[in-house]
Amino acid sequence: MKQYTQNRVRAMLMVALLCAVGIVRAQPPRGPLVVSPQVNADKSVTFRYLAPSASDVKLGAQFEKAPVPMTKDAQGIWSVTVGPVKPDIYPYSFSVDGITVMDPANVAFFPNERFKASLVDIPGDTPLIHSLKDVPHGSVSYEYYPSVEGTTGSLVVYTPPGYDKNPKAKYPVYYLISGTTDTEETFFKVGHTNLILDNLIAEGKAKPMVIVMPNGNIAARLAEQKGGSKPADPIGRDNPEAVKRANDFGADLTGNIIPYIEKNYRTLANRENRAIGGFSRGGGQTLRTAFSNMDKFAWVCAYSAYLSPTEMERSYSPIVTNVANTNKQLKLLWVSVGSDDFLYKGTVEFMDYLKAKNVNYKSLITDGGHTWMNVKTYVAATTPLLFQP
Amino acid sequence: MKQYTQNRVRAMLMVALLCAVGIVRAQPPRGPLVVSPQVNADKSVTFRYLAPSASDVKLGAQFEKAPVPMTKDAQGIWSVTVGPVKPDIYPYSFSVDGITVMDPANVAFFPNERFKASLVDIPGDTPLIHSLKDVPHGSVSYEYYPSVEGTTGSLVVYTPPGYDKNPKAKYPVYYLISGTTDTEETFFKVGHTNLILDNLIAEGKAKPMVIVMPNGNIAARLAEQKGGSKPADPIGRDNPEAVKRANDFGADLTGNIIPYIEKNYRTLANRENRAIGGFSRGGGQTLRTAFSNMDKFAWVCAYSAYLSPTEMERSYSPIVTNVANTNKQLKLLWVSVGSDDFLYKGTVEFMDYLKAKNVNYKSLITDGGHTWMNVKTYVAATTPLLFQP
Repeated sequence: MKQYTQNRVRAMLMVALLCAVGIVRAQPPRGPLVVSPQVNADKSVTFRYLAPSASDVKLGAQFEKAPVPMTKDAQGIWSVTVGPVKPDIYPYSFSVDGITVMDPANVAFFPNERFKASLVDIPGDTPLIHSLKDVPHGSVSYEYYPSVEGTTGSLVVYTPPGYDKNPKAKYPVYYLISGTTDTEETFFKVGHTNLILDNLIAEGKAKPMVIVMPNGNIAARLAEQKGGSKPADPIGRDNPEAVKRANDFGADLTGNIIPYIEKNYRTLANRENRAIGGFSRGGGQTLRTAFSNMDKFAWVCAYSAYLSPTEMERSYSPIVTNVANTNKQLKLLWVSVGSDDFLYKGTVEFMDYLKAKNVNYKSLITDGGHTWMNVKTYVAATTPLLFQP
Repeated sequence: MKQYTQNRVRAMLMVALLCAVGIVRAQPPRGPLVVSPQVNADKSVTFRYLAPSASDVKLGAQFEKAPVPMTKDAQGIWSVTVGPVKPDIYPYSFSVDGITVMDPANVAFFPNERFKASLVDIPGDTPLIHSLKDVPHGSVSYEYYPSVEGTTGSLVVYTPPGYDKNPKAKYPVYYLISGTTDTEETFFKVGHTNLILDNLIAEGKAKPMVIVMPNGNIAARLAEQKGGSKPADPIGRDNPEAVKRANDFGADLTGNIIPYIEKNYRTLANRENRAIGGFSRGGGQTLRTAFSNMDKFAWVCAYSAYLSPTEMERSYSPIVTNVANTNKQLKLLWVSVGSDDFLYKGTVEFMDYLKAKNVNYKSLITDGGHTWMNVKTYVAATTPLLFQP
């Protein structure tokens, strides 16, 4: 009788859960508890997905070169164990009869405007730099700021450990812009930027700093909303639309975001204490914004991004014609890329261009592609350089 | 030629995006920009999903009683326009050949351990209480705290507008626990608790307060992780496992979370300035924790939740045997539920029990079911009552 009651309560809860999202009844109620992903002691990972009626389920994961077939058990749970996998955080999804889905059993997700993926975190034998360790933690805050006139934007702000306990301390600020179709949450949720900084600060390797994570597409989006138009396609790096979006973002950053931050956080408000960086499209926006605002930023980091020599000559010629001034003003110009990145060639061309023009820069070429595994590496490599004498 | 280059860059970016999540090539590259959801001026909503190869796509939305078939256009985009829809925030998902998926074009999502859904926000003619308005905004911070010994938990904390500008002010605290399979993010991302409070505070209707949003399942999860065991099924309200989880949570709240908050935030640290509330399982945890810790909380809110008379008699008899003391100590005991909620009957039984025992309580019966639309209503109804003389 007791078991009957429990089952009844459980069934009612299942119905409530399914009702809660208006799930279509074509799917049977979810019975068994699905545990996924399950990281095993040998660093292999077991993925599971419940789909009794599906005929083909595959795992797509960024540590695999090709989709991995999964197999179905008697309960209708598809699973596969892969690896051992090199410790890192990877996006993955399932392909269920050709339909891409996130892992319903996993709360860790990849914030993005265009695709949905889950995240799996394979820990190292010794904790990796992006791991949650037993060190003092900063805070990550979601904030609203007055953006494009008459609109409100949102951004994510990291404050270092001790920020609230030192009411007189002021901090330098790193403005860090996410990539194409990423959101203001991506550097936090996928990049673990807060944990990387917590760990570097605990080791004495990075200066305590505020990190401001805006959405590189927000100014264009808000302008579209305000104008009553549908969102335009945010894809693109070099076309006029992408350049316009980069410039809209730059205007929002310098005109709205920086004033908001400097009014509401205890910051050192001068160029020597402002850095700007970004990944992919955000890296392009970084370079364009920095080269247009040399009075505002002294530290510049492009992760997997570049500007073409053509655009440099056309739009930013003072950077290379007055190279002595550039080298004096920029405390750091950083360019990094993975050797398998589809932007590798363009990025190396950009480095060669800077070198030919005697512009000082630092660079890092890593293995791998246009991935957030590499972004974490670049964040960990660059933040120790920022705001140092 | 220029168009060719743009298309090539676009194609490369598409490949990069798809590679970025290891998407299986069974799906064609996503060409057209899909805009979804699109809220129209007449409050109808157009939903779109790209699936050229699918044979059946339906919308499942909490404002619809049954799945709504969608139709495919020449580009392979399935769409449907529904409504006008009553202004509110609703979860929805698509059923694609029977597979439930989030809306890939929408960044607004429902944080949950067991299902994935997107969110659509239909604004009112005058802004609703959970809308982003042009009023001073508080902050929402993600924090780490020392939880079950040797583990670190995460929680979300709202601080009201002006918190950072008034370094000597101290605030009352509302501990607000999410429902079954919800996470610490759900009251923020789905419940818009921060915006409700911003608006109520701006109107002078609620006292500025800190709101702490823990994950009602975290203590049990962390204990399982620490013990090396797989997660147990978190479904259930009244069974011994659910009661154990509620008690584990209560111990984490009083032993770890409250000390962390009172050390790191400027709080009024006494029972008259502590409230506890929650939805569904979190409401059950609220009642159990409050009735076990009458020295710690004076304000208690159960949203769509109850304890059975049997459990009251067995575990919390002092609440009803010393009713004069209960009524003196509890500044507020609130119970609310929707008339279509599957917990309606149990909740009304609980109210009747309290009434029969002369325990003072306030109640609200609304339309609707076990939904986050109702949770927002209950948050907006109760927070003005908290910490008032």
